Amino acid sequence: MKLKGRNLIQPEDFSVNEIDEILSLSQNIINNPSRYSRACEGNLLATLFYEPSTRTRFSFEAAMNRLGGKVIGFSEPNSSSTAKGETLEDTMETVSCYADAIVMRHPKSGSATQASRFARVPFINAGDGGNQHPTQTLTDILTIKSLKGSLDNHTIGLCGDLKNGRTVHSLTKAMARYKNIKFVFISPKELEMPEYIKEAIAGHEYIETNNLDEVIGELDILYMTRIQRERFESQEQYENLKDYYILTAQKMSKAKSDMLVMHPLPRVNEIDTEVDKDERAVYFDQARYGMYVRMALIMKLLGVEANA
Amino acid sequence: MKLKGRNLIQPEDFSVNEIDEILSLSQNIINNPSRYSRACEGNLLATLFYEPSTRTRFSFEAAMNRLGGKVIGFSEPNSSSTAKGETLEDTMETVSCYADAIVMRHPKSGSATQASRFARVPFINAGDGGNQHPTQTLTDILTIKSLKGSLDNHTIGLCGDLKNGRTVHSLTKAMARYKNIKFVFISPKELEMPEYIKEAIAGHEYIETNNLDEVIGELDILYMTRIQRERFESQEQYENLKDYYILTAQKMSKAKSDMLVMHPLPRVNEIDTEVDKDERAVYFDQARYGMYVRMALIMKLLGVEANA
Amino acid sequence: MKLKGRNLIQPEDFSVNEIDEILSLSQNIINNPSRYSRACEGNLLATLFYEPSTRTRFSFEAAMNRLGGKVIGFSEPNSSSTAKGETLEDTMETVSCYADAIVMRHPKSGSATQASRFARVPFINAGDGGNQHPTQTLTDILTIKSLKGSLDNHTIGLCGDLKNGRTVHSLTKAMARYKNIKFVFISPKELEMPEYIKEAIAGHEYIETNNLDEVIGELDILYMTRIQRERFESQEQYENLKDYYILTAQKMSKAKSDMLVMHPLPRVNEIDTEVDKDERAVYFDQARYGMYVRMALIMKLLGVEANA
Repeated sequence: MKLKGRNLIQPEDFSVNEIDEILSLSQNIINNPSRYSRACEGNLLATLFYEPSTRTRFSFEAAMNRLGGKVIGFSEPNSSSTAKGETLEDTMETVSCYADAIVMRHPKSGSATQASRFARVPFINAGDGGNQHPTQTLTDILTIKSLKGSLDNHTIGLCGDLKNGRTVHSLTKAMARYKNIKFVFISPKELEMPEYIKEAIAGHEYIETNNLDEVIGELDILYMTRIQRERFESQEQYENLKDYYILTAQKMSKAKSDMLVMHPLPRVNEIDTEVDKDERAVYFDQARYGMYVRMALIMKLLGVEANA
Repeated sequence: MKLKGRNLIQPEDFSVNEIDEILSLSQNIINNPSRYSRACEGNLLATLFYEPSTRTRFSFEAAMNRLGGKVIGFSEPNSSSTAKGETLEDTMETVSCYADAIVMRHPKSGSATQASRFARVPFINAGDGGNQHPTQTLTDILTIKSLKGSLDNHTIGLCGDLKNGRTVHSLTKAMARYKNIKFVFISPKELEMPEYIKEAIAGHEYIETNNLDEVIGELDILYMTRIQRERFESQEQYENLKDYYILTAQKMSKAKSDMLVMHPLPRVNEIDTEVDKDERAVYFDQARYGMYVRMALIMKLLGVEANA
Repeated sequence: MKLKGRNLIQPEDFSVNEIDEILSLSQNIINNPSRYSRACEGNLLATLFYEPSTRTRFSFEAAMNRLGGKVIGFSEPNSSSTAKGETLEDTMETVSCYADAIVMRHPKSGSATQASRFARVPFINAGDGGNQHPTQTLTDILTIKSLKGSLDNHTIGLCGDLKNGRTVHSLTKAMARYKNIKFVFISPKELEMPEYIKEAIAGHEYIETNNLDEVIGELDILYMTRIQRERFESQEQYENLKDYYILTAQKMSKAKSDMLVMHPLPRVNEIDTEVDKDERAVYFDQARYGMYVRMALIMKLLGVEANA
């Protein structure tokens, strides 16, 4: 099955081979961006953001622009026709008349699947509520592949709110498709990884802990995420536990010399800014990988090639 | 009189011959879009939306982008300098310094005429309150011409709120410029076509009815529009009448096999979604024609030609 | 020191020679814009407007587009990641991953300096609160150079709110770098030019007055700015004085035949619209010079050349 003309709603929509194909094209683009500067010439991407997400929108728009394509879109819900009572289905039908591919961000879980059925052009889910955000997962995977050389044989720590974090759920399931991955889930008891995710990674070893300090030395990759204060049972609980989940230079001193620190961004205070200078901190590089993987994804779905 | 450098405030600004010229270029673009992919290279369009209208804005921006041109603009009133007390006249003078053509949408009736006097570049009215929306009319006419082969010799039904509908008024007057057109106005009594429109089409036959079912069999084209609940005299009246003005598969079964169903979109519930599958339903195609007719319009007003 | 890779936070960041270099390139672009239509091909500019300023945003976006570059950006604070608690520093790090240069407008004084430290690409301050707006100053200087032939030997009147006006402070300091400039400060007593600006122009002659009529005949350039009603001590004071600072055709009759009337725009009522027809009124031309000087600035900071 070819990627041309397909939709991306969730990471599982693509086989491991198809993801490899996208990662491989991403790396070609990174190595020789000028070969792809006109790959999407004559193509138009619609970016429909029913809730604001500047970072994700910029990443897609930069990707399309750097491929020589053009972009139309909106970044606020109220500038859309939805305000006039139009259904998402009708909006998809209409936008398909103007654009060659559609990127949609929507606050409602499940809206991406619903919308994609009416899009007559390739449709990319840029986040549908707490449900899926597949291009974040592709970003994370490209970062690991590029900086570690392989997606196999890693001990990966996921730290923060593992109960509610869409990003960590997707990444966990995606990494479970590779060989010899060991997961370390680091969270307070009340925010631990849900059972259905743990079941989904059957066959892989995992451990759970509420203390980053104790496990950081074993990790090849540490994936940090934010814990929202309001997720804790009480203010007292928050004050007691928060330092367990804040990455500092002191904690970094116990980590392997080639451990990667990743974060989907935006960060609030869960990584101390003193860590930014550490070479192992790759969260800003991640943003750049995010642009490249979106370039590759757009090219594959549109079925276009490098510059002639 | 040439189209280059002209403004478009209302459909009557262009002669029938000039509209023919635009329709003819539109059809050339449809048949061979790649010949026009760089027609507007080096040109910049400003899209000034003082009220949101995603569909119309997308259509213009897609048009300019597909001609190889660029776009600057705003889609919300409060991001404009008007918030700082600048007059529309000064905004036009200034934007004329940056852009090669201006598209404006404004909630105030008559604002397009006022603004166009101060624009030093071609000015296109993309809707000024309840007054005019000439590119919708061009869209409707291109759709009819393309799908029926000619603009003469049609029985056209207009259904819905004919009293307040800017779109149906413009289309009625525009179609009255062609030969042997018969109009069928379908609306509740309190929302019927105003006298001044009926006078404007003198020489053409028309009938009025409040029942779509009774006349649908005679129509070559059925142009549906929305009836807002609040336009009715009472809630009871609305409940009694609304089904008369909702197009269903059952009503379609009485229509000619080549009748076109058109709608300016967005639709709310006045066309049942089961009609979407019917080949005679062309309202989503209409959106595509809207992009092409805007491509032709922009080219004509800028005086540019197909790719060298 | 080369301009390539530099930031622009305030006009003093560039030497007189560097400003000359930018003005000279601006004039080349004006004389032969098509030579520069692909100068920024493959480059991407981010325009981050944390407060709306349509005019400035349009000017930058038109500049980049007319150089063959592309633009991503936002025009409203609430569509930014800041809404999610991200620091300005992290936003700069991330946007640097997507774009080749950053333009930022921010309501907070000093934010441009802070942000520029974390931008890994050239950073242009498009206004940081009441502090600096250096591209307005470049615009003003290019206008004077282009229309007067030289930046030396002028009597320049600055009229309006000289106490709070960021624009007039910057222009005064910038003009003081040229030879034989005489300043005429025209304002009500309570809104006069601050001492620190008068000290900064030591070596140049200046006079202060509260009456435009009395001095207009001496001026080579009259730079008008708005006086906000709420700046006056009382409503009565405002009514008494306001006509002193409104430019009318009658006042223009006393001015030199080659005096330039400038204004940073938007204007409210401080220049009567009857003055617009006067050939000496160049405030709308200024907007065009603003676009050209930004084209030159972007080219210099990116280190790109005219089309091959």
